[in-house]
Amino acid sequence: MIKSRAAVAFEANKPLEIVEVDVAPPQKGEVLVRIVATGVCHTDAFTLSGADPEGLFPTILGHEGGGIVEALGEGVTGLEVGDHVIPLYTAECGKCKFCTSGKTNLCSSVRATQGKGVMPDGTSRFSYNGKPLYHYMGCSTFSEYTVLPEVSLAKIPKEAPLDKVCLLGCGVTTGIGAVLNTARVEEGATVAIFGLGGIGLAAIIGAKMAKAGRIIAVDINPGKFEIAQQLGATDVVNPKDHDKPIQEVIIEMTDGGVDYSFECVGNVQLMRSALECCHKGWGESIIIGVAGAGEEISTRPFQLVTGRVWKGSAFGGVKGRTELPGYVEKAEKGEIPLDVFITHEMPLEDINKAFDLLHEGKSIRTVIHF
Amino acid sequence: MIKSRAAVAFEANKPLEIVEVDVAPPQKGEVLVRIVATGVCHTDAFTLSGADPEGLFPTILGHEGGGIVEALGEGVTGLEVGDHVIPLYTAECGKCKFCTSGKTNLCSSVRATQGKGVMPDGTSRFSYNGKPLYHYMGCSTFSEYTVLPEVSLAKIPKEAPLDKVCLLGCGVTTGIGAVLNTARVEEGATVAIFGLGGIGLAAIIGAKMAKAGRIIAVDINPGKFEIAQQLGATDVVNPKDHDKPIQEVIIEMTDGGVDYSFECVGNVQLMRSALECCHKGWGESIIIGVAGAGEEISTRPFQLVTGRVWKGSAFGGVKGRTELPGYVEKAEKGEIPLDVFITHEMPLEDINKAFDLLHEGKSIRTVIHF
Repeated sequence: MIKSRAAVAFEANKPLEIVEVDVAPPQKGEVLVRIVATGVCHTDAFTLSGADPEGLFPTILGHEGGGIVEALGEGVTGLEVGDHVIPLYTAECGKCKFCTSGKTNLCSSVRATQGKGVMPDGTSRFSYNGKPLYHYMGCSTFSEYTVLPEVSLAKIPKEAPLDKVCLLGCGVTTGIGAVLNTARVEEGATVAIFGLGGIGLAAIIGAKMAKAGRIIAVDINPGKFEIAQQLGATDVVNPKDHDKPIQEVIIEMTDGGVDYSFECVGNVQLMRSALECCHKGWGESIIIGVAGAGEEISTRPFQLVTGRVWKGSAFGGVKGRTELPGYVEKAEKGEIPLDVFITHEMPLEDINKAFDLLHEGKSIRTVIHF
Repeated sequence: MIKSRAAVAFEANKPLEIVEVDVAPPQKGEVLVRIVATGVCHTDAFTLSGADPEGLFPTILGHEGGGIVEALGEGVTGLEVGDHVIPLYTAECGKCKFCTSGKTNLCSSVRATQGKGVMPDGTSRFSYNGKPLYHYMGCSTFSEYTVLPEVSLAKIPKEAPLDKVCLLGCGVTTGIGAVLNTARVEEGATVAIFGLGGIGLAAIIGAKMAKAGRIIAVDINPGKFEIAQQLGATDVVNPKDHDKPIQEVIIEMTDGGVDYSFECVGNVQLMRSALECCHKGWGESIIIGVAGAGEEISTRPFQLVTGRVWKGSAFGGVKGRTELPGYVEKAEKGEIPLDVFITHEMPLEDINKAFDLLHEGKSIRTVIHF
């Protein structure tokens, strides 16, 4: 048992508390990781708000981290102490029906227990004053030390700065991967990106990497447009500037609609707009944002019968252990500009400020240093 | 001007009247066709019922025909008098943005005027007692003589029996094409087909052609199961035999869901079931059925974010002039068994009986002979 500084969410909709928790040693197939830095993502805020029906408390949130392997449980063969790693909320065992399908990154190996906030053996490695704390998304990166299954860790080069590439653990990879893996945007294609938070900006980077011919960035906050344009957006649209529905505006701008659209907010009405602004015959819309509990998307089936395709993407369709190291490499080469995402940096002790910045729409990403 | 026996729908929700209408000569780019036989499809019944918001009256319905070219308008170069043809409600001009995209069969060349019940010059070729009648789906095959744009006619071999291959003008091609073109079902795949009318049965044939490993046929009428099994269904499921939602039944039967599902009814609740019975990570659902006016599909976005894909298909994604002749060839070789679809045959004078049989669920297809 080791002591670890951690930001604990004791209950929903309350500030996190910085306390010293107990971390049990890694069990069979598990790894102890010292987190060096972590981003604070909207999904953390969503769960903390209490709106996430699968949210469990008390828990240690955080899922966008970078760390160093400190100790190995029995049977761990693919990692060594000292390796640099990015925790994966989407594991990759390489053996399950999903991993072997070649069609998806949604590994099932640890899914059931991860969803229950525990390790594969059904218990937690975290406790505070003798009472267990739930793991979160299999990562719990808001703790100096955390334990993960080996299959939930991507090994990355030691040269990569953990306080930057930690962002590849969620938002940045999600946005880029949705464009490159899920949609497979082709050179010259017209794309629309709805919502210019971290994921939307990453989607712009992805569209630029794919050499999209036109990249239409959509947000109701015009303060986001400058950075969107710097990253490669060719057009910016504020729905508030138009009387008609935004899908009609985009259809007119593009002579019939876009080839690909991406919903990066989690708003079900916007998901409909994103679908309906797609070109008849071939336009594809990809849902990336996470909607509130029980919310539903809808449209007229005619939209699909006339050739539009509705898809979604989780972690950008990226397989964590085999493909994420390639993203780290691209970031190292400057092809993925991580610096633009980091608007704030602060120590763990100030983490509640990071949530405030997020709620106020003032940050893209705050990186927390341990 | 020539005289033509036709079944005219003078108003919605009334029996058709067999009268002699006047047909004007084919204009520039148009062709006069003598219809030899036509199927009666659910879409004809849907429009006749008055539920189709785009239905225009008085009109000559019918869109699943086979005929012989009788006269050519100015500038028609791809057809000759005496050619055998299948009318296309989805034209193929080969030149528009859609045709040249390589991504869709939804040609735009005559769409706008076709939707308004007139020929590309904005007028009708049909009249009765001096008053114009609307064309229907650009075909109006319930008339001994009809006029179509050249781009709306597929030339087929003269050996093919028109009173059978007429069915390739809609339902049969729609079902098979959705499987082969839109979904591109692979060998060994598991598919579920919802609704065992003409389109659903054709989808079974398509799945069999694609060498699907498991073909699950779903209908609330167990009377459809025998023919479904003859055509290749490996499993039949009646939702009425189960207390739980049909998507749950199918997920259990298939250890996680199907690779592809097809909705062949036009029921928006069933469209949801068809999506949700798809396997997480890769399952694709294709909407073929036409829903009622204003009806909407809905689901939780989580269904898509976890890897399911929602698509649709019109005329099976088949390009009429370039691909339909290949379907006729397959029917000639016995690879597409058209006979099983033809449950009734009758002269034009009895066409209202064909609608009765359709409403009573007693026919798959009635073929009308002129």
